[in-house]
Amino acid sequence: MTPIAALTNHQVRLARRPVGMPTPQDWSFTAEPVVEPSEGGILLRTLALSLDPAMRGWMNEGKSYIAPVAIGEVMRAGGIGEVIASKNPQFAIGTLVSAGVGVQEYALIEAGQAQRFGLHPIDTRLGSPSQWLNVLGMPGMTAYFGLMDVGQPKAGETVVVSGAAGAVGQTVGQLAKIKGCRVVGIAGGPAKCEWVVRELGFDACIDYKAGDVKAGLKQHCQKGVDVYFDNVGGAILDDVLARIGRGARIVICGAISQYNNTAPVQGPRNYLSLLVNRARMEGIVVFDYADRFPVAVKEMAGYLKDGRMKSREDVMAGGVSAFAQALTKLFTGENFGKLILQVAQGPG
Amino acid sequence: MTPIAALTNHQVRLARRPVGMPTPQDWSFTAEPVVEPSEGGILLRTLALSLDPAMRGWMNEGKSYIAPVAIGEVMRAGGIGEVIASKNPQFAIGTLVSAGVGVQEYALIEAGQAQRFGLHPIDTRLGSPSQWLNVLGMPGMTAYFGLMDVGQPKAGETVVVSGAAGAVGQTVGQLAKIKGCRVVGIAGGPAKCEWVVRELGFDACIDYKAGDVKAGLKQHCQKGVDVYFDNVGGAILDDVLARIGRGARIVICGAISQYNNTAPVQGPRNYLSLLVNRARMEGIVVFDYADRFPVAVKEMAGYLKDGRMKSREDVMAGGVSAFAQALTKLFTGENFGKLILQVAQGPG
Repeated sequence: MTPIAALTNHQVRLARRPVGMPTPQDWSFTAEPVVEPSEGGILLRTLALSLDPAMRGWMNEGKSYIAPVAIGEVMRAGGIGEVIASKNPQFAIGTLVSAGVGVQEYALIEAGQAQRFGLHPIDTRLGSPSQWLNVLGMPGMTAYFGLMDVGQPKAGETVVVSGAAGAVGQTVGQLAKIKGCRVVGIAGGPAKCEWVVRELGFDACIDYKAGDVKAGLKQHCQKGVDVYFDNVGGAILDDVLARIGRGARIVICGAISQYNNTAPVQGPRNYLSLLVNRARMEGIVVFDYADRFPVAVKEMAGYLKDGRMKSREDVMAGGVSAFAQALTKLFTGENFGKLILQVAQGPG
Repeated sequence: MTPIAALTNHQVRLARRPVGMPTPQDWSFTAEPVVEPSEGGILLRTLALSLDPAMRGWMNEGKSYIAPVAIGEVMRAGGIGEVIASKNPQFAIGTLVSAGVGVQEYALIEAGQAQRFGLHPIDTRLGSPSQWLNVLGMPGMTAYFGLMDVGQPKAGETVVVSGAAGAVGQTVGQLAKIKGCRVVGIAGGPAKCEWVVRELGFDACIDYKAGDVKAGLKQHCQKGVDVYFDNVGGAILDDVLARIGRGARIVICGAISQYNNTAPVQGPRNYLSLLVNRARMEGIVVFDYADRFPVAVKEMAGYLKDGRMKSREDVMAGGVSAFAQALTKLFTGENFGKLILQVAQGPG
């Protein structure tokens, strides 16, 4: 095994704030020597990185739910790592963990930084490392608390979810089915639509690339939409607003259609449908529910085990140098399932 | 006294659906003989009519929380009437009532129609007939349930209300003060702003006609906005969205800035602030709370009596033939306080 001091950490740093769709020029690539952790610290080898729509927001200047990534800083990213050096008795060498490792090959987490990094060991009996970045990770937790706490679906209600084949959407739809709802997905292209219906058991899926979302909603949500879990914003949000039922709940989880716009965000023109229908629209930030992640993980792992919950990951090879390419794939919707960038091979 | 059969009922009917701001050509004027009520019915002489922003929506075709006024139908309006003929022992001649009388001088409410007309006697010991169209009527009930049930203000929180000198806004702000909140109004012109601060006790008021609402919000809501009661929509809603605090509640009561637009509604571009701040935006329709009106009326009448709640009505003369003019006054924001059209002199 290569000694720590002989290892090099390749990193991707934010070189400038992107305007519109991020380009390769927005990133700089650095290489640093890897150092041993101090007392209480651990050193991780990054195995896989999570690619998330929220990343686009972190690249922007300005107040948000989390500080922006600074220019010159290693790009923020969640991932799975393997402990390869440890001066912390709680983390033996070889332990697999989930943490905000950043887009780099090695991450040093010193004493007292565990919480800031969201560091926790993962139990591969509950799910594979990829599933720990998907159903059992941030996307799954976002789906769980966004749907259950904000959306509050009741059995028999109609739940619509956009980005239905994406990381959050696939779990939202399956969870809503488990809770006894009718579920209608919105996704791009026949392959994704067919997958969420045939494999995941959604009641229907509207292909927004094929055209008329409004007509699809009319056909599949004849009694109106009770819960809309929105990952995309833009025109689709307006189409759903025009179709909500009385007392509907709209969960604002994201707006991927708007993140790379250089024009101002398209506000929902049909927002007065909230008034007419006594409905509400409410934002969700998953970090608020961190205290309850263990309970939700346990419930979701149960569904994975008994086959009621499936997951699909789209794992890209290429390591950290493929990060810019992976991000483009995410924002053009070319990924099919949770997008993960493989950085190194894990143990076993 | 003139016998019933000799009376003429002058009425204002919707002649066509307005495009943009309603014009006199949108109305037709009819005169019908007044008839005696049948068994169980009553005949009302209209004393005063309530002019409400919601009227604009009732003139449009299409699904809303209430059926549109049909072409050729007497325009819908709430008002105060005096019972001048009665074949219903519950309503003696001379009784003052609140009801959906419509824009006409006399209204016949036959047996079984009381609920449809929202008919109920008013107790002038609790408030004047004008106050029964304001604080104790629909605007007051909208303010009460919109603020308390949807906005859920807590003592010490900052409440912002637009249309602050209007019928709903004046009551929202005063009620929020009574409940221990800091209250910032938004209104048009120095006279209205001065009135809500000096007379009604708001902590501050931003004059949107003087310009920079954003700067005013920054100055007066340094810790962010906890509850925003929106009567206007448009750019002001966006300015407030940019200033909300974590867990804020936005009550969507109306959007008077948008009602007469011929362009599509301006959707709130800053709606993703709901996500960042885990905030919600929710619609209110006052009719949903009808069961609880008596309790709210009692509470509000108490505040009127002990002087903690003031009310201002802007009473126009001219009878039903001045209706189109009154509506223009409402939609250009020239009214100062709850706009009421006087149709006849009441008893005493």
